[in-house]
Amino acid sequence: MNGEVDEESSLVDINETAIFLNLSKAKVRKLIERNIIRNNWGQYTNLIRFTKKVSHIEEGSVLNYSDANLEIIRGFPKIRRCLLLEPALKKNFSSVDEVAVEEKMNGYNVRAAQINGDIIAFTRGGLVCPYTTEKVNELIDPTFFEDYPNLILCAEMVGPDNPYVAKTCYDVNSLDFFVFDIREKNSGEPYPVKKRRETLEAYKIKQVNLFGYFKPKDAHKEITKIINEIGSEEREGVVVKDPEMILQPMKYTTSNSNCKDLEFGFKFYNDIGRDYLFSRVIREGFQAAEWNENNQKLKDRCYRVGSSILYPMVNTINSVGKNKKVTEDAQIKVTRLEVLDLFKQHLNRSGIEVLFEEPIPEEDGYIVKMKKLNKSTNDKTESIWLGDYW
Amino acid sequence: MNGEVDEESSLVDINETAIFLNLSKAKVRKLIERNIIRNNWGQYTNLIRFTKKVSHIEEGSVLNYSDANLEIIRGFPKIRRCLLLEPALKKNFSSVDEVAVEEKMNGYNVRAAQINGDIIAFTRGGLVCPYTTEKVNELIDPTFFEDYPNLILCAEMVGPDNPYVAKTCYDVNSLDFFVFDIREKNSGEPYPVKKRRETLEAYKIKQVNLFGYFKPKDAHKEITKIINEIGSEEREGVVVKDPEMILQPMKYTTSNSNCKDLEFGFKFYNDIGRDYLFSRVIREGFQAAEWNENNQKLKDRCYRVGSSILYPMVNTINSVGKNKKVTEDAQIKVTRLEVLDLFKQHLNRSGIEVLFEEPIPEEDGYIVKMKKLNKSTNDKTESIWLGDYW
Repeated sequence: MNGEVDEESSLVDINETAIFLNLSKAKVRKLIERNIIRNNWGQYTNLIRFTKKVSHIEEGSVLNYSDANLEIIRGFPKIRRCLLLEPALKKNFSSVDEVAVEEKMNGYNVRAAQINGDIIAFTRGGLVCPYTTEKVNELIDPTFFEDYPNLILCAEMVGPDNPYVAKTCYDVNSLDFFVFDIREKNSGEPYPVKKRRETLEAYKIKQVNLFGYFKPKDAHKEITKIINEIGSEEREGVVVKDPEMILQPMKYTTSNSNCKDLEFGFKFYNDIGRDYLFSRVIREGFQAAEWNENNQKLKDRCYRVGSSILYPMVNTINSVGKNKKVTEDAQIKVTRLEVLDLFKQHLNRSGIEVLFEEPIPEEDGYIVKMKKLNKSTNDKTESIWLGDYW
Repeated sequence: MNGEVDEESSLVDINETAIFLNLSKAKVRKLIERNIIRNNWGQYTNLIRFTKKVSHIEEGSVLNYSDANLEIIRGFPKIRRCLLLEPALKKNFSSVDEVAVEEKMNGYNVRAAQINGDIIAFTRGGLVCPYTTEKVNELIDPTFFEDYPNLILCAEMVGPDNPYVAKTCYDVNSLDFFVFDIREKNSGEPYPVKKRRETLEAYKIKQVNLFGYFKPKDAHKEITKIINEIGSEEREGVVVKDPEMILQPMKYTTSNSNCKDLEFGFKFYNDIGRDYLFSRVIREGFQAAEWNENNQKLKDRCYRVGSSILYPMVNTINSVGKNKKVTEDAQIKVTRLEVLDLFKQHLNRSGIEVLFEEPIPEEDGYIVKMKKLNKSTNDKTESIWLGDYW
């Protein structure tokens, strides 16, 4: 979120905020000065987001302070990743009788909550996303939040009409909302897995697949099978959870997902961080070692990793060499054109440069194609074609 | 050179140094305080090295200040690397009629000079290397420095008895000294290519291969042929030079060299910097694009890159999983055991941890095997086998 426009931070009420968060007024003043707590935009200036972790409050947390309410929607905690499944299960889950294994879907992470009577969707960073907010209002039975105004649905937005991560591997037409966690406002306490699944089923709210409950000492075998199966369908991975949600969950991904990340990363080799690229390669090495791959399997993986790196990079270099810029293409589908305008403002304020095409009317809304230009990769590649050094 | 022992910096004479370098006394005092100029060790405390670039003085420069002499051995300037050969030749060398193409050998970079009557070899960073100093004294006709006390030989130390980069692809028995540049003390002015080659031939001092002189507009074709040929012999690459040595030289490497670097880097995946790994992969992408590789050639390259990454990493992970630490093995060959002691001190003071085996006597000296432990990779891999997250 570079290049974010600084505005309206002064609307934070220092006294109220300090009392509610149990921080000193001086600290709150400093957080405002340093842009660590900032207002949302437009009609949501009463929603204050945390751009960094502050003592006990996670990054991406949102403080709603209106006359009627003073409440906090906690940022979604990062799920730790394991590289070797069996040792990580043994170390981190041996104190429970069984673990729940659910699907980690590939989309973008949102939190939906009822705020002052409206259902609103927040990005990971705590911004109100107008596009996701529209979708969530269309997709979720509103009686859920009438019955549970104190709950937050943590979900993955998945499908082809996805402005950030477009995937067609799921059985989703446009964009859908798959809950993986229910948490309480203020405390951030998560629901146990069974209770969450039952609660959501009652309202027909979609949730991520549950692959099953396994004993920690057998789980690595079951997960390996699952990972191989869903990997062949280009799906992303799993999250291993303590059914009571007391222990921290842990994620593990398919080779396909690691390699797709590499493809994306090397298409935009100069925009994407080196840590992003390095970490994907490292995951492949540990998976190959743990699975004790025979000669042919390891050879296949070498080719897969090498191809995921070189093909997209070579395509980018060739494309720029022919004066054709490389872009990241995506599309959204909106029911109302007002939402498109709000979404454009949202991206613009977030510092993300996107070119939108003209909306294409459909029976039930508008498809809008968009192109993100990854300027650094285009500029660097062009300069090297002009003879510059690295 | 982390963990370097701080000592003897106070031996710098601030007045003399300031006058000679044309810097203020206050600046020299600050450089000493910040450990930017530091003494060498042992008998060489009169040789002061620059650990960073300071105004016009390159990193690795050595100031010799003894009663008889006050002179500077300039640090060897970094040679810029091109990623696309034809555009880089066009942009950087179109002002000359021809370019000289010489071999870039894979070893370690040293500068040899006569200092107060002795022939001494300096590392890239400006330290006196006792091992290289012994070798240089054995290998170089001493009349060269008697005739030219004001010259510096810039060379690559190449061969199997190499403590840093052991390579067997060159026709070298133990360790040899291949000059690629002659420069003057103080000014740092380089000799033109022809003059350098003739001067060295007269003293039978070895130098890097000269592949030929080419017109800049044809050179990319010739260099591509050379790169393919020497790559198949596991050799490293070429340096393209203005024969007059007025324009800055430029280097270009073989795919084999890039991939061997990756192999080394991923064997010690947690010790080697991510930039090091990333840059090698990037070189492969640009070479494949410029050479417009057909489907099979690009497939081969994908497999080569993937293998260079995964095989060494998987070997490391498996090895540590079986409680066997991975080490970087090398050997040196010394004529006198005193040199071994001095070399051990040199590595120790440079903060490099190495285990030496007992010297093995040979007819003409001693072989000493050594193991460098890359602690971070071993520790990280072990912790992941014990169930830690990344």
